[in-house]
Amino acid sequence: MSTKLQSDPDRLFPVDSETRAIARRLYERVADSPIISPHGHVDPRLILDNEAFPDPAELLIRYDHYVTRLIHAAGVPLYELGVPDRTGENPTAAARDAWRRFCENWHLFAGTASGYWLRHEFTELFGITEHPNADNADRLFDQITAVLATPAFRPRALFERFGIEVLATTDDPMDDLAAHKALAEDTSFSGRVLPTFRPDVYLNPAAPAFVQSVEKLTQWNGTPVDDFRGYLDALAGRRRYFIEHGAVSADHGVLQPLTVDMDESEAASLYARAVRGELSDREAAVFQGHMLLQSARMSVEDGIVMTVHPGVYRNHSSETFERFGPDTGHDIPVSTNYVDALRPVLEKYGNVPDFHLVLFSVDETSYSREIAPLAGFYQSLYIGAPWWFLDAPDAVLRFRSAVTETAGFYRSSGFIDDTRAFLSIPARHDMSRRLDAAFLARYVSEGRFEEEVAAQIAVDLVETMPRKVFKL
Amino acid sequence: MSTKLQSDPDRLFPVDSETRAIARRLYERVADSPIISPHGHVDPRLILDNEAFPDPAELLIRYDHYVTRLIHAAGVPLYELGVPDRTGENPTAAARDAWRRFCENWHLFAGTASGYWLRHEFTELFGITEHPNADNADRLFDQITAVLATPAFRPRALFERFGIEVLATTDDPMDDLAAHKALAEDTSFSGRVLPTFRPDVYLNPAAPAFVQSVEKLTQWNGTPVDDFRGYLDALAGRRRYFIEHGAVSADHGVLQPLTVDMDESEAASLYARAVRGELSDREAAVFQGHMLLQSARMSVEDGIVMTVHPGVYRNHSSETFERFGPDTGHDIPVSTNYVDALRPVLEKYGNVPDFHLVLFSVDETSYSREIAPLAGFYQSLYIGAPWWFLDAPDAVLRFRSAVTETAGFYRSSGFIDDTRAFLSIPARHDMSRRLDAAFLARYVSEGRFEEEVAAQIAVDLVETMPRKVFKL
Amino acid sequence: MSTKLQSDPDRLFPVDSETRAIARRLYERVADSPIISPHGHVDPRLILDNEAFPDPAELLIRYDHYVTRLIHAAGVPLYELGVPDRTGENPTAAARDAWRRFCENWHLFAGTASGYWLRHEFTELFGITEHPNADNADRLFDQITAVLATPAFRPRALFERFGIEVLATTDDPMDDLAAHKALAEDTSFSGRVLPTFRPDVYLNPAAPAFVQSVEKLTQWNGTPVDDFRGYLDALAGRRRYFIEHGAVSADHGVLQPLTVDMDESEAASLYARAVRGELSDREAAVFQGHMLLQSARMSVEDGIVMTVHPGVYRNHSSETFERFGPDTGHDIPVSTNYVDALRPVLEKYGNVPDFHLVLFSVDETSYSREIAPLAGFYQSLYIGAPWWFLDAPDAVLRFRSAVTETAGFYRSSGFIDDTRAFLSIPARHDMSRRLDAAFLARYVSEGRFEEEVAAQIAVDLVETMPRKVFKL
Repeated sequence: MSTKLQSDPDRLFPVDSETRAIARRLYERVADSPIISPHGHVDPRLILDNEAFPDPAELLIRYDHYVTRLIHAAGVPLYELGVPDRTGENPTAAARDAWRRFCENWHLFAGTASGYWLRHEFTELFGITEHPNADNADRLFDQITAVLATPAFRPRALFERFGIEVLATTDDPMDDLAAHKALAEDTSFSGRVLPTFRPDVYLNPAAPAFVQSVEKLTQWNGTPVDDFRGYLDALAGRRRYFIEHGAVSADHGVLQPLTVDMDESEAASLYARAVRGELSDREAAVFQGHMLLQSARMSVEDGIVMTVHPGVYRNHSSETFERFGPDTGHDIPVSTNYVDALRPVLEKYGNVPDFHLVLFSVDETSYSREIAPLAGFYQSLYIGAPWWFLDAPDAVLRFRSAVTETAGFYRSSGFIDDTRAFLSIPARHDMSRRLDAAFLARYVSEGRFEEEVAAQIAVDLVETMPRKVFKL
Repeated sequence: MSTKLQSDPDRLFPVDSETRAIARRLYERVADSPIISPHGHVDPRLILDNEAFPDPAELLIRYDHYVTRLIHAAGVPLYELGVPDRTGENPTAAARDAWRRFCENWHLFAGTASGYWLRHEFTELFGITEHPNADNADRLFDQITAVLATPAFRPRALFERFGIEVLATTDDPMDDLAAHKALAEDTSFSGRVLPTFRPDVYLNPAAPAFVQSVEKLTQWNGTPVDDFRGYLDALAGRRRYFIEHGAVSADHGVLQPLTVDMDESEAASLYARAVRGELSDREAAVFQGHMLLQSARMSVEDGIVMTVHPGVYRNHSSETFERFGPDTGHDIPVSTNYVDALRPVLEKYGNVPDFHLVLFSVDETSYSREIAPLAGFYQSLYIGAPWWFLDAPDAVLRFRSAVTETAGFYRSSGFIDDTRAFLSIPARHDMSRRLDAAFLARYVSEGRFEEEVAAQIAVDLVETMPRKVFKL
Repeated sequence: MSTKLQSDPDRLFPVDSETRAIARRLYERVADSPIISPHGHVDPRLILDNEAFPDPAELLIRYDHYVTRLIHAAGVPLYELGVPDRTGENPTAAARDAWRRFCENWHLFAGTASGYWLRHEFTELFGITEHPNADNADRLFDQITAVLATPAFRPRALFERFGIEVLATTDDPMDDLAAHKALAEDTSFSGRVLPTFRPDVYLNPAAPAFVQSVEKLTQWNGTPVDDFRGYLDALAGRRRYFIEHGAVSADHGVLQPLTVDMDESEAASLYARAVRGELSDREAAVFQGHMLLQSARMSVEDGIVMTVHPGVYRNHSSETFERFGPDTGHDIPVSTNYVDALRPVLEKYGNVPDFHLVLFSVDETSYSREIAPLAGFYQSLYIGAPWWFLDAPDAVLRFRSAVTETAGFYRSSGFIDDTRAFLSIPARHDMSRRLDAAFLARYVSEGRFEEEVAAQIAVDLVETMPRKVFKL
């Protein structure tokens, strides 16, 4: 491919020229707004240590399972992309070799979300003007490596250059949050890096590490491992610890967003059996559903925003999981039910002032059918931004189309980048701003509202809503 | 917001200028066609009594749960919008205060279906040129109140001005239809206001009022309450009464569109236990499914069109239901299955000449997957217009796209406004006509058919199909 | 309708003029590419015998259940369209009468996929310039009949004129493939006509013909009917026979794509009871699921591509089935689950080199949620082209939008016409090429990639991918 790699300044805007002009004007209102990232997976030590990024493969490929999965699908083993094979049967590729595999397969990413973000990073951050391919792989490797060595590419310099105002990480409840503490105390760094409480493994008796995790948790609390009250106290205590270190939200990843109300005695009895590994699959699901409801109760009490990311079948390929671990590209969405599953928690807390519950989905069918109608009534409920596979241009426009006519613009959470790829953060937020501008511009062209109304909404989606929904 | 509130004459047309020009021409063919409204919820006494509408809050807010739910979601209690709290714990807001709450929250409706209709009403009926807000709330209240006091805003004057040819109401089977009768006999009124037979509570043993309702029904019939034959006769008798007063359809609201065929003896036995309140949830659902099939049989016999509106979880929030009653904004769509559920009724009556069964859906996934393929084969089946949350511009275009390529244009029912908001009727029908024009114009631009073909379809969708499907 | 029937050279391209120009250029790259048809239902004897097509009704209506179903829905009995009533109660219409019914109902096809293909055939093959109607029915019948009598309209002449490189048929495993053999040996014919192994009835104990079919199969193999090993051997043997006669794929039609792994002893025991007709519905489904997995194993061994077409409720109307047989327009899609159902086969063979599993769907919800994520990881998995009711312009664009951002363009199978209507093959492939050009042009206009990138993808979708996926 000899075509120049370009970054179209009008990218993602509507193709109709008049509507495009409106989108351009709307986008300009928010193009330089600060980045608020209330949910993501960047390691806080990256910012704390502020060391130069390693090579391009380590930075852009190895940890990005959006990227590795597509090259894997084309027949390239994950270890050739730098993902270590835990069984030791296969050698992990050197960085330059992994990068070469990526460049050879660059054409696979045309039209994908990852392709879009990488193009943004290549052109806007690294000044690359060629499509990666087998011939230029080594040259691009060297070019990016050279850029990464410059002071301007240290994480903190980029944090500032990207205009990040808030960056939330995702953390284990027993994490000591030392990195967050050190960052907060570092007077040379003015950004906000906030922890997020992510207790999945402590709430799900079916998780392999459940028993070990609750042992550690209750030990910290000084209560017997099988004491339900102690377990609840410990969770509440760790949440307080997180709040003291800046946390504004707790995140929950579940297969189905089941919530279950039950007597304390029943819950205590299930819990006692759970820590002995005695629950059936169904009982484990019920207990987990109860703990989702208990987590909502704690949010009502301590004010932490509750976010739920349901509907993903994790580690679909056992062999890949055994060799390469989790987050290696084979988490697959499933059909998700919100209306029945969430009723117990909404019955109790759906209209409690200041309780915020943000619902994400990877099942698009739920947007118009369930989530928008629920969020169009319940005061506590907000519609999470399109997530994971749906965090892509066409999918985002489908999302806006699916929810807006029922719930308007003011029941949605604002954009969440949900990424561990630090360099992709501006690309993702910029994408979201362009798409909202595109969507709003179409409504203006269709006479649904005036351009000035749209401009206010564009600003509110980027600035007002994330601050409000995530209490920032 | 200082922007002028406007009504774009080209609203909802495609943004591409050539396609827009086609849409404009297609729309002109039907813009002034009479309004045929074969399904809705306007109170016939409104037309009969022909009194001036009360204040703007009573007229536009209190009864419109599309409107109240979004303001509620923003944190405003329903009683502040004029919905009385049955527990008496909270005072019902005065009209002017409710109106003020609405105006303060007008921005929530940008992009919603309600926002679209209200804008139409404000600009086209009341001559309002400002976006409602806290500052102009009182002024707008007075302005609308003044307009409502004029003779031109009496219901019958509007009925004529709106060009309504037929308006169907929704009525309890035991209603004496006195209002309809009086209207039909009133020589000073030439519009057709038709009752619709809506027997849900008489067919569903799980409905709280079931026993009381069938007691009243069988008493009218002079048969014992637990006599199944008598019960069927009574239903058939009330249908005849409705037909005598102009009814052309019977409407059924069910959670799932389950139909069940069974022996009369089995049905009779279930019924006898149902009137004693002895059915399990499952038995109640089965009996209700059988009664849906019996209703189809009655339609085959008496010629009344059968419409089914399934897939809504009613009264999702118990506390709201207890305080404020039904139809207060927390009815939520659920995933709906038509293919298995409807098979029994289609096996029996799916190809019976002159039997018309119109299927509505709030689960968009069913349009291309189930409803269009079914209606593309069964002679009795028609595709209902997009309903409730889907009765909105983008959703309507998605609907047309989902069903047309499988079922064409001539298996759809034509537009149904389904509203109790009398003033919104022209806005809704106009919206539908614009969207059909927009959809057809795109197909013309894409070379799918010629503009003259599209023009004929546009007219047929507005005039021919509703008359044919609803036997008007 | 006096409007001229036209074939717009820009049909299906985007309406925006600049984007349309891009689409036109992309389309030109593939407009004349050879047709590769790796899955379809044309009878090989049609090509072998090379006789003139009979009349227009026999050619275009009677066997096309896409066409007959819509006219049926409008109230015309199938026998009036030339479909024989097996009960003998109704006379089968003469060809000219059936054709007249079709012409009278031509307006029903506006906007449908069938309408699009028929328009293409009428204008491009038969030079028709009028919309069919009651008045010109006889004239058109004569006009088409005259064209069909010309040597240029013999099947082989059309095969060449259409530019068909490969045409796969669909065949019973016990078919002797005499027609394929004769064609391969015929030196006067250079096209490739390949058989496809379609063993549904041999794998599904719930199929009425199961016992009779496996009897025939095991008899051929010389093993006892109830011997599971012999049954597996026989299937493998027939696959080898098909391979020897050019087959590249085996096709599986199932209600749900359930795959089940089990011990050989358990499978053998189920099989032995299956041939005695002793399985419950559930056991039959489990056995069929196991045989889907066994079929995958055989594909791994013999290299035949495995295609799965799930999610269709066949013969929904019993009476129509009894009178008119299968494939008469009442097969209805159902909600389909891939993630759980396919896990067993993907666990075993999902990343086996050279195993190709192509998944089709008539449930659009599965595209973004399940199929694209699965195919974006598993090396063996390819996304089948939109199928059946979804093989239509808008649906194809929805498909591309749903899968591309997750799986890119290189995990999709390329176009499959899946048709028994020989004359519609060029119309269908041309439609697909236009739609891919339209989709790619939009992405170019939106700055997603450059036009040269799009041009390469357009060519790959038409030429590279079908050859690769189907090992041609």
